[in-house]
Amino acid sequence: MDEKIINNIRSLAIDMIDEAGSGHPGICLGAAPIIYTIFAKHLNYNPSDPNWINRDRFIMSAGHGSALLYSTMFMAGYGLEIEDLKKFRQFGSKTPGHPEYGVTQGVEATTGPLGQGIGIATGMALGGKILEEKYTLEKEKKIDNDKPLINYHIYVLCSDGDLMEGISYEAASFAGNLNLNNLIILYDSNNISLDGILSYSFTENVLDRFKALGWYTDVVKNGNSVNEIDNAINKAKKSGKPSIIEVKTIIGYGSIWEGTNKSHGNKLESDDITNLKTKWGLPNEKFHFDLEAKKDFSNQLTERSAIKYEIWASNYRRYVEERLDNDDSSLKYLFNNQFVNLLDYKWDFSPDLNEGTRVTNGQIINVISEMLPNFIGGSADLSSSTKTYIKNGKDIEDNKYNNKNIWFGVREHLMGSVLNGLSLSKFKPFGSTFLVFSDYMKPAIRMSALMNLPVTYIFTHDSIYVGEDGPTHQPIEQLASLRAIPNLYVYRPCDANELVGCWNSIINSNKPSALSLTRQDVKLLTESDMTKVANGAYVVRNETARLNGIIIATGSEVSLALKVASDLYTNFNIDIRVISMPCMELFLKTPLEYQKTLLPIGHKVIAIEAGSSFGLEKFVYNQNYLITIDKFGTSANAKDVLKYCEFDYDTVKEKIKGLLK
Amino acid sequence: MDEKIINNIRSLAIDMIDEAGSGHPGICLGAAPIIYTIFAKHLNYNPSDPNWINRDRFIMSAGHGSALLYSTMFMAGYGLEIEDLKKFRQFGSKTPGHPEYGVTQGVEATTGPLGQGIGIATGMALGGKILEEKYTLEKEKKIDNDKPLINYHIYVLCSDGDLMEGISYEAASFAGNLNLNNLIILYDSNNISLDGILSYSFTENVLDRFKALGWYTDVVKNGNSVNEIDNAINKAKKSGKPSIIEVKTIIGYGSIWEGTNKSHGNKLESDDITNLKTKWGLPNEKFHFDLEAKKDFSNQLTERSAIKYEIWASNYRRYVEERLDNDDSSLKYLFNNQFVNLLDYKWDFSPDLNEGTRVTNGQIINVISEMLPNFIGGSADLSSSTKTYIKNGKDIEDNKYNNKNIWFGVREHLMGSVLNGLSLSKFKPFGSTFLVFSDYMKPAIRMSALMNLPVTYIFTHDSIYVGEDGPTHQPIEQLASLRAIPNLYVYRPCDANELVGCWNSIINSNKPSALSLTRQDVKLLTESDMTKVANGAYVVRNETARLNGIIIATGSEVSLALKVASDLYTNFNIDIRVISMPCMELFLKTPLEYQKTLLPIGHKVIAIEAGSSFGLEKFVYNQNYLITIDKFGTSANAKDVLKYCEFDYDTVKEKIKGLLK
Repeated sequence: MDEKIINNIRSLAIDMIDEAGSGHPGICLGAAPIIYTIFAKHLNYNPSDPNWINRDRFIMSAGHGSALLYSTMFMAGYGLEIEDLKKFRQFGSKTPGHPEYGVTQGVEATTGPLGQGIGIATGMALGGKILEEKYTLEKEKKIDNDKPLINYHIYVLCSDGDLMEGISYEAASFAGNLNLNNLIILYDSNNISLDGILSYSFTENVLDRFKALGWYTDVVKNGNSVNEIDNAINKAKKSGKPSIIEVKTIIGYGSIWEGTNKSHGNKLESDDITNLKTKWGLPNEKFHFDLEAKKDFSNQLTERSAIKYEIWASNYRRYVEERLDNDDSSLKYLFNNQFVNLLDYKWDFSPDLNEGTRVTNGQIINVISEMLPNFIGGSADLSSSTKTYIKNGKDIEDNKYNNKNIWFGVREHLMGSVLNGLSLSKFKPFGSTFLVFSDYMKPAIRMSALMNLPVTYIFTHDSIYVGEDGPTHQPIEQLASLRAIPNLYVYRPCDANELVGCWNSIINSNKPSALSLTRQDVKLLTESDMTKVANGAYVVRNETARLNGIIIATGSEVSLALKVASDLYTNFNIDIRVISMPCMELFLKTPLEYQKTLLPIGHKVIAIEAGSSFGLEKFVYNQNYLITIDKFGTSANAKDVLKYCEFDYDTVKEKIKGLLK
Repeated sequence: MDEKIINNIRSLAIDMIDEAGSGHPGICLGAAPIIYTIFAKHLNYNPSDPNWINRDRFIMSAGHGSALLYSTMFMAGYGLEIEDLKKFRQFGSKTPGHPEYGVTQGVEATTGPLGQGIGIATGMALGGKILEEKYTLEKEKKIDNDKPLINYHIYVLCSDGDLMEGISYEAASFAGNLNLNNLIILYDSNNISLDGILSYSFTENVLDRFKALGWYTDVVKNGNSVNEIDNAINKAKKSGKPSIIEVKTIIGYGSIWEGTNKSHGNKLESDDITNLKTKWGLPNEKFHFDLEAKKDFSNQLTERSAIKYEIWASNYRRYVEERLDNDDSSLKYLFNNQFVNLLDYKWDFSPDLNEGTRVTNGQIINVISEMLPNFIGGSADLSSSTKTYIKNGKDIEDNKYNNKNIWFGVREHLMGSVLNGLSLSKFKPFGSTFLVFSDYMKPAIRMSALMNLPVTYIFTHDSIYVGEDGPTHQPIEQLASLRAIPNLYVYRPCDANELVGCWNSIINSNKPSALSLTRQDVKLLTESDMTKVANGAYVVRNETARLNGIIIATGSEVSLALKVASDLYTNFNIDIRVISMPCMELFLKTPLEYQKTLLPIGHKVIAIEAGSSFGLEKFVYNQNYLITIDKFGTSANAKDVLKYCEFDYDTVKEKIKGLLK
């Protein structure tokens, strides 16, 4: 029966690709036995409770194999119907070209950009280990030693391409370091890459590499043997380590293009499809499937999962009853978002406060951490500089998972991807590094935005003010580059007050967010207002009488703008309104009426920001009204760098004077 | 004497950091014996001919150790003076906070962002192997078997941080695959990272990992032993493989902060400095150095190098005389840029040409390849899709280096970094992938721009027109994100004609460039003009009588704009000028007069581009005049995606009609 089901999976996937006119048959034919074995023999998933917190997760890191995933899910009795398969890669369907989180029930993460799936799975594995330890924390409190409340596995199907990407190495090194033994990667090893024979680009000994990273490794020589794959997974589960199983497969298995890169991304010829179906003993009929095979597959999955589900449900009830006195509110975050009101918290910022917003941020996240059990995070080996350490949070280490500080190492890309995985596991995670290094994690940030995950990126050292470290460490284009990502909210607070407002928006909006914070000291402003951050922008200084001009500023430039405005008013009677814009995206979402109140038509508007002009142009009449930096900085003390970038106080003041006088 | 010189290096580095008030003493104290051994016992470098094509290259991948590099270079008799050391991290000095290419003679690459140095070094190593084989191609033609014309080594000093970054893994896997045995990495292994004890984030067996990638590995247990380091390098040279030598060092060696992360990035206390100098037998005098030690060090370097230099010079003369009949023009590119005129080439595009610009690009780069011997490149395992294969170029493989096609594997980040290294080795390299995956290589692209290297990034599948693959594969913000990088020229040609013009600018400007090309077919336009690309933008359709409005379009949107303009004129008598803007950066560099000729003040301007509005805002009156896409796409056929993004012909036409009627 196994083989019959596998051939049904293959056949449907091929039909989907044929119907769509495009797709990736190679992996569908080659790796069907792998995914089948996982779903039929191992994965615990309850189709009638797809959000079951203790379900196993399957991640198709080789996202181009989406047809294989959908046909498997269909045959296994997931939510998909045969009609959904027919609409593969069509507008509005549940079966998009690459797996998309939120579109298809059972798709646990968006994948496709190679390596991301492995990174996300690593984050999910860490999330699982934290929850596992959290709810069986003390030995004597364990409800059932063999069946803790949370104990799921993350299964990944990955390709050669996934393993060539640096992010997957970063993930593997990280997973090895923390010994995330709930993570099992099945490596579809077929010696072929998109462009041809793999050895042109990839000849390393993959398993030896993973061994060096502390992983359990195994090889399945016959990728068509369900038994061999099954045994290998069983051994991996017992290994006590993160595991990778190299499964030797043949790309495009059975097709006339078998073993060649031609089968990777081209739909099969119709004769080939007919012959394949004959070989499989299936009728030459599009979207045919064997109902008995479907039932058998679905039964295997649900019967096994039902046992685990019921044990879990009973354990959960007992846990809530015995440990929590029937009040499961402390578990709420596992099922729903939790909201907190940071605006009402008793902040006691000294009126003389003068410190980098990175420092204030350290204080604020420590408060948030006390409020939210699932607020965790870390840095890419820069927490001494980004100041994002949770003081009462302890460090997450191998076998000490139920803590709050993650040591990502100098692995920004992996950090972003792990944050995505943690977020998908019901955490509210943050990660920090220098703003300029946001470049290293760009693809992961995009994934947060695509999946609409409440991940917070904390980027400090946010402008040329960093000074001596020079242009490699001075961000210029990074703010623009982040703001250009759809659905990412970029916050740049001017002081402690605004920073609280930013965090209040971030935590309660549940949106992917990035915080841009200073390294240099900034004063607490009397003009700033935490309650107004939700509007994205607001007036911090009103004109006195007539309006000569408006300055929009963000972050550290707000105090600069205020100083210039005051100076020009006192000495030259130039009457300026100053607007602080801590979040451009939020401001642009406010009603036009509000926007016009701040920026009435017919007045000169100047924008100041210590970074690229891109994206600020929309607020001004022409380029002359932009006081920005569109060249690389230089290594020198901040004062000299500012001068070099024509961003020192005098130059800025003279420019504004010239524009408004 | 070795120790004396090393302590002088340490002492100067500490003084530099002390004088600057910031810097990284930990590596200076810990790794001084490593860099000394390389410079004194191995590196072949001629201070009086710093651009010597056959010099060995030293790359300080751990760029934060710049003080160590500068003090070493000073002591070794490079161009630096003691006054330069005193100006460490100051404006305009030759000793910036991180090593910067072009600022300091002998600094072979800008480093600092971790991992980049290893990637660049890998590119340099590949460049060296190509040149080595090129000029000793046939065995019988070898001038001297033991001393070929080009045979340099690349030495890298790297840190734990470098090795945690995914790009360094990608580089190592690539170097192992091609067996780049001229690459020798010295790994400063001190068990400490910026945030503390390394084992919190990094416990893998680094050497076993490199072994699995095909590298020769060795350990030096005593990082203070010049002999041990020297021996290890000698063995590495003979290994016939790329080599990594783990040198066990003590961060902050000798300081009171020895062995702790405190010594990493904080200047030492003055008492500590005094004690160190006493320990070293040096006077407690700032910027003191021992003249004898300097002479000895410099002699070691120059005497050894002189031998190699003279052999090389004589070989070079003989090579030119015997092989090239005294005409060294074919070697010109090794010393100077070569210019080519692509505009005068007899292109024979059919008037009916209708193909993706990616396809036309394949034809054009094959022509360029015939003209320029140093024009080489490859793709991140996508050449079947990006069409960037050099047909007569053969594949670069282990021991077949003198070819033109590089198989980067699915390693975009490494690709960018190798391109930088090849460019620094006098090649004109290109690399290709999908535009959306430019995110993966962002840090390397920024390095190209920072170093002003003539690297060309070819990005195909440049908009939502890719259709079915969905939002993970549909670029939105990438064009903006690239254009925001200072000093990067982003080209988006509308057809074959403009593409030729783009390449003519790219090749002859010697600037970092990115090409944005379509996957979908675009027609050859009668209105396009290859000679006008140099202006960045030009008129492709003039208004007939009165000017109702101007449309700026790029790439595939130019034909769309022309069609709309013609349609609106014929049917509604709306008279539109259309401007094609293949390169925004070039256009913004033209005289204001020219810009005003195209965009006379007082007329409505509309910008159309199938991507983010960021950066286009500067051309229009307000957001309503932007026809752009500021949300993620969707998986569907191109037609449906266009509709979803309000970018289909009818919607665009109606919008423009509404704006201009």
